[in-house]
Amino acid sequence: MRQHRLALCSEHFLAWVPQQVQRAIERYHMFTPDERVLVAVSGGKDSLSLWDILLRLGYQVEGIYINLGIPDSGYSDISQQKVEQFAAQRNAPFRVVNVKAEYGESIPEVARRKRGRNVCGTCGLVKRHIMNQAACEGDFAALATGHNLDDEVAVLFQNALHWATGYLGRQAPVLPASHPKLARKVKPLIRLYEREMAAYALVRGIDYIYEECPYSRGATTLFYKQLFDQLEQASPGAKQQFYLSFLQARTEGRLLLPEADTVKMGECKRCGQPTTAPELCVFCRLWDAEDITE
Amino acid sequence: MRQHRLALCSEHFLAWVPQQVQRAIERYHMFTPDERVLVAVSGGKDSLSLWDILLRLGYQVEGIYINLGIPDSGYSDISQQKVEQFAAQRNAPFRVVNVKAEYGESIPEVARRKRGRNVCGTCGLVKRHIMNQAACEGDFAALATGHNLDDEVAVLFQNALHWATGYLGRQAPVLPASHPKLARKVKPLIRLYEREMAAYALVRGIDYIYEECPYSRGATTLFYKQLFDQLEQASPGAKQQFYLSFLQARTEGRLLLPEADTVKMGECKRCGQPTTAPELCVFCRLWDAEDITE
Repeated sequence: MRQHRLALCSEHFLAWVPQQVQRAIERYHMFTPDERVLVAVSGGKDSLSLWDILLRLGYQVEGIYINLGIPDSGYSDISQQKVEQFAAQRNAPFRVVNVKAEYGESIPEVARRKRGRNVCGTCGLVKRHIMNQAACEGDFAALATGHNLDDEVAVLFQNALHWATGYLGRQAPVLPASHPKLARKVKPLIRLYEREMAAYALVRGIDYIYEECPYSRGATTLFYKQLFDQLEQASPGAKQQFYLSFLQARTEGRLLLPEADTVKMGECKRCGQPTTAPELCVFCRLWDAEDITE
Repeated sequence: MRQHRLALCSEHFLAWVPQQVQRAIERYHMFTPDERVLVAVSGGKDSLSLWDILLRLGYQVEGIYINLGIPDSGYSDISQQKVEQFAAQRNAPFRVVNVKAEYGESIPEVARRKRGRNVCGTCGLVKRHIMNQAACEGDFAALATGHNLDDEVAVLFQNALHWATGYLGRQAPVLPASHPKLARKVKPLIRLYEREMAAYALVRGIDYIYEECPYSRGATTLFYKQLFDQLEQASPGAKQQFYLSFLQARTEGRLLLPEADTVKMGECKRCGQPTTAPELCVFCRLWDAEDITE
């Protein structure tokens, strides 16, 4: 690991990764051992490794897997199998939400019906809604996702490229619950590189779905990751430096960005979740018969 | 020019480029036709084209060429010839400052003597000092440099990578004179891509030095330019978007950065230029016998 000037054997590497996670949890006040945490798992290396690490660290965690109903190359079926297999091996509690069984249509189906709706945008919206609902209704203190440093760097770069100050203002390892029905969101893998997570899953023998989501092909964030891989290659530590110096500049008040929106939120008439819309939230409108794109 | 969705013949291209420059001069209030402008020329495509364009637009311009004494592949000699030839063809006024003749040592020589001093850093320091001195003593309203959009994007990226908020706060198309002995600095080529400038020099028949400075090999800004070339290739207009949305976010107050330093400046006891040092400015100390690196 050139960025840390560190080379570890398997055994020490398997101890080092959870230390990094523990450090992030404490440093950013993500959650305590007394709190219950819901971990969003996709079946990929990052989220399964995160679940594994939090279990190893002794946190009270429960998994949530959302079956999106993506049929291409058996993506959703295989990823659900990986999650079930992981949980069975560890006897770890988790729940599955099947989008099609629950709401009548899979993600590709609803995106197709709502013409003009981008599949990835729809998917993000649905996942955020379901995860938040599960975290709030289940009384979890936090919702943890498996975003690693490379993920955050790609998003930070995307936002910096457009100087999207609103998004920049909200990008953080912890997003506090700004409303009683919005869960605290935490990213415990923030200190770890994507390759480190892949190495962890491999060495730890975690069986995950190798394929990326078929809809992610050509995604701009993947392109940004390639650019930062080149940068990291030329200058080890560049990714970490980019992300951490951003957090530092903001903490020190050298980089003042707009506060997270203080928009007055009401409750959706159907699901009760917070929304800025007057009647139904975007999620609920998604399942309505009319072909409205907001 | 995919970023502008525009394709022009030679004739219209030669008219379009000065329009872009004129627009930048007016938009950012760089200087007026009544003001005298000193143009820093290196013999490269950007600065010679800038000089050509400002002459065509009817501004009162004078050139300044600084001979750095870089012997490799005859770099300094050839670049001076290009400048002299350009000026002779247009009967354009210009002055030459020869660093070695004036101060006793060339840039590589002084950098070598002051061990630990990076050549590019020394060169930048010397050029800034000489240009500023010439602009102030010659009573020019502004000092114009040939930085193009690619140059600014590379520097902006470098500063964003480190969230160097001090530098980010100072990066602008116009840097006002913050002291009576500091010249206003302007970058009229800010709206133009590097390839547009190369095309302009070519079509306009401007003979410039093709070689980059031998010391610039492996410079990180060249690497950043390559990264942004890839980005621009995938998403035409990305460079312009990155730079202009930065300026816009700052103008709109969405991105608040530290004010340009309000450090109290005294005057150098030898050259009289503003400095934060108590006795001699960094430039003057450069030529002192002692091997002090500040």
